Amino acid sequence: MRIDSERLRRNFEEMNRVGATSQGGVHRLALSDADRQARDLFAAYVRDGGLTLSVDEIGNMFARRAGTDEGAPPILSGSHLDSVPEGGRYDGVLGVLAALEAVRTLDDQGIKTRRPIEVVNWANEEGARFPPSVLGSGVFTGVYERDYAYEIRDAEEKRYVDELERIGYRGEIPCRPRPIGGYLELHIEQGPKLVAANKQIGVVEGISGLIWLRISLYGRRDLSGTTPMHLRQDALAGAARAIATIQGMPVRVHPDLTVTVGQFTCSPNVIILVPDHVSFSVDLRHLAPEILENAERLVRDIVQGSASLENLTFEIERVASASPAAFDPSVIGIIEAACETMGRSHMRMPSGARHDALHMASLCPTGMIFVPSEGGKSHVEDEFTTWENVLQGAEVLAEALCAYANRP
Amino acid sequence: MRIDSERLRRNFEEMNRVGATSQGGVHRLALSDADRQARDLFAAYVRDGGLTLSVDEIGNMFARRAGTDEGAPPILSGSHLDSVPEGGRYDGVLGVLAALEAVRTLDDQGIKTRRPIEVVNWANEEGARFPPSVLGSGVFTGVYERDYAYEIRDAEEKRYVDELERIGYRGEIPCRPRPIGGYLELHIEQGPKLVAANKQIGVVEGISGLIWLRISLYGRRDLSGTTPMHLRQDALAGAARAIATIQGMPVRVHPDLTVTVGQFTCSPNVIILVPDHVSFSVDLRHLAPEILENAERLVRDIVQGSASLENLTFEIERVASASPAAFDPSVIGIIEAACETMGRSHMRMPSGARHDALHMASLCPTGMIFVPSEGGKSHVEDEFTTWENVLQGAEVLAEALCAYANRP
Repeated sequence: MRIDSERLRRNFEEMNRVGATSQGGVHRLALSDADRQARDLFAAYVRDGGLTLSVDEIGNMFARRAGTDEGAPPILSGSHLDSVPEGGRYDGVLGVLAALEAVRTLDDQGIKTRRPIEVVNWANEEGARFPPSVLGSGVFTGVYERDYAYEIRDAEEKRYVDELERIGYRGEIPCRPRPIGGYLELHIEQGPKLVAANKQIGVVEGISGLIWLRISLYGRRDLSGTTPMHLRQDALAGAARAIATIQGMPVRVHPDLTVTVGQFTCSPNVIILVPDHVSFSVDLRHLAPEILENAERLVRDIVQGSASLENLTFEIERVASASPAAFDPSVIGIIEAACETMGRSHMRMPSGARHDALHMASLCPTGMIFVPSEGGKSHVEDEFTTWENVLQGAEVLAEALCAYANRP
Repeated sequence: MRIDSERLRRNFEEMNRVGATSQGGVHRLALSDADRQARDLFAAYVRDGGLTLSVDEIGNMFARRAGTDEGAPPILSGSHLDSVPEGGRYDGVLGVLAALEAVRTLDDQGIKTRRPIEVVNWANEEGARFPPSVLGSGVFTGVYERDYAYEIRDAEEKRYVDELERIGYRGEIPCRPRPIGGYLELHIEQGPKLVAANKQIGVVEGISGLIWLRISLYGRRDLSGTTPMHLRQDALAGAARAIATIQGMPVRVHPDLTVTVGQFTCSPNVIILVPDHVSFSVDLRHLAPEILENAERLVRDIVQGSASLENLTFEIERVASASPAAFDPSVIGIIEAACETMGRSHMRMPSGARHDALHMASLCPTGMIFVPSEGGKSHVEDEFTTWENVLQGAEVLAEALCAYANRP
């Protein structure tokens, strides 16, 4: 479905003047004055489009277009207008404005849909100011209590509820699960896969689950000069061997498994002393729970083997985990069909990052559409997607949304 | 040669009351009041033994026993009385008092030697207060200038020369190379090899050389969740693989090669970010220069290979190096013969730590005798060698010293 590229671009540029940074990014923390301005602008666009705006008690904004069957649960589409500190111009904004543009296009073309469509701006998606992230959709889907969210404080001890009240977006409507027919979200990939594969659209199969491990190895501190190799208990040597093996796991486990050792500390960290304590993190991600669990088991086996070889003791702590959310096959099918209709190259892929779609997938059939991120950059001021790619994504969204809202 | 165990033990205990710590160690920093007391006590033992004491301008103390050929260059034997902060009771003291006891034994048994023998207490061996270490022997052998040593300042900005003057041990005799027939030093091993091999005496083949490298790997910072493995440039993964391979080098290069990665830093060191910069140290030690150089070349090749596989750039800097000092085969032979005469089990080994013998080896035929260190401990208050092992070492030293001083 062709959309009005000029209107979308105009709205996009105008929205990104709110909280614009000198380096070309945006700084629109949740419930800040900039967030208020962004919300006001969105509300103006909604009025301009003749849609009905409602705001719930957590600050989520819904702009509703009626369906021919008003009793049918609506299809939701949107994303968020808040940003991380000094973030990019595409993350979130794109999904909200493209969903709005899709609805405007239906009006322009005189297309009615069976189901109502609601364009949503989720509150506090980033969680940068009020952690955790994806909070608005979390309360909406019943994952978090409203009052839990209200009491979250920012670094200056300001409460969520007070800041929400202050910017005038504490709505009357209860924020709790209600019948929803489906959820579609357009987002930038935030990774390098689409560019690397030279594809226009990523059809997201789900949100990857994660397991975070903290691994500590304990050996003995010895002088480098006087201790022969076979009498050492070298915690760093054990860690290096374990990490080298762990890094190779995707070859044998699954090519989409990611393994990241991002943190590493060594003690006493002196050039002439054999380290007696090393600690490192392991971040495992995959879309399939059984692969994640298998990967965790392998990490434990590998660490045990390395520790055994180096005569070390060890501890492995699971510090965090999140279950994967697989998206609905029928929604994936609708998006792929839309790509074909629009003549766009596409590939299936997991989302490594969390999105509001994670929570929505627990409530209704859900899908996501990714467009390429140049250089895989995200959450930085030079985050960039070509306008051609933006437009292609927005048109696939419009096509899919129309098809989805018309399903019997 | 049997020695007077009781006298040696009495002197050893008395000397270690100087600067004794509550945890059973000693704290006798160079040119401190405790060092002066230790020197005074040594001087008293020297007078008691009827030897001639001389002190040079850097504070080295020489106690001379005449030879039948007074024109022959003397054999020197000794070690040092200074300690590291909260050090042990054996490091240094043993070599000075055992050499003195050897000379006393010759007198007791009415043995004359062709060459004169001088018992030496080297100034500032540890270098803990006035770096660098092995300073007194360094000036004596012409490695350092006297005035360089004089101007070294401690943490309180006190000059070496002023502190030397203050404690009354700034001698008149020039400190510079003079004809020396040979040098023998008894010392604790400061490592675990003799205990592990169940040997009584270590016959030291030389002081290991060392090469210190600093290796930096540079990749690209990416989000763990959204960046597939094959599109990463993971500096930590490259470092882990390189270190795991480097740690295995002794198996193929030489079993006595030691490889230590003691320092490791990772940036940005965040659990969800692929590290873009990792830096680590490599400490290589061996007795043979060609093996050390081969090891350095291999480290460079291994780092290059790992960097290549991970698509990283890298820098390798040689931050320090010290040439090995091989000891004289004839002195090694004399020590081994003395072990056989005394019925002591022995093994050849390098010294991983630096000693005054390092400098002396550049001036005259040099050898060292090691006795076992329980637990390999050194430079700590619970440094320990059984008295049986001390006595065995002192007797092998006396036997070797006598044989050496009588060589034609």
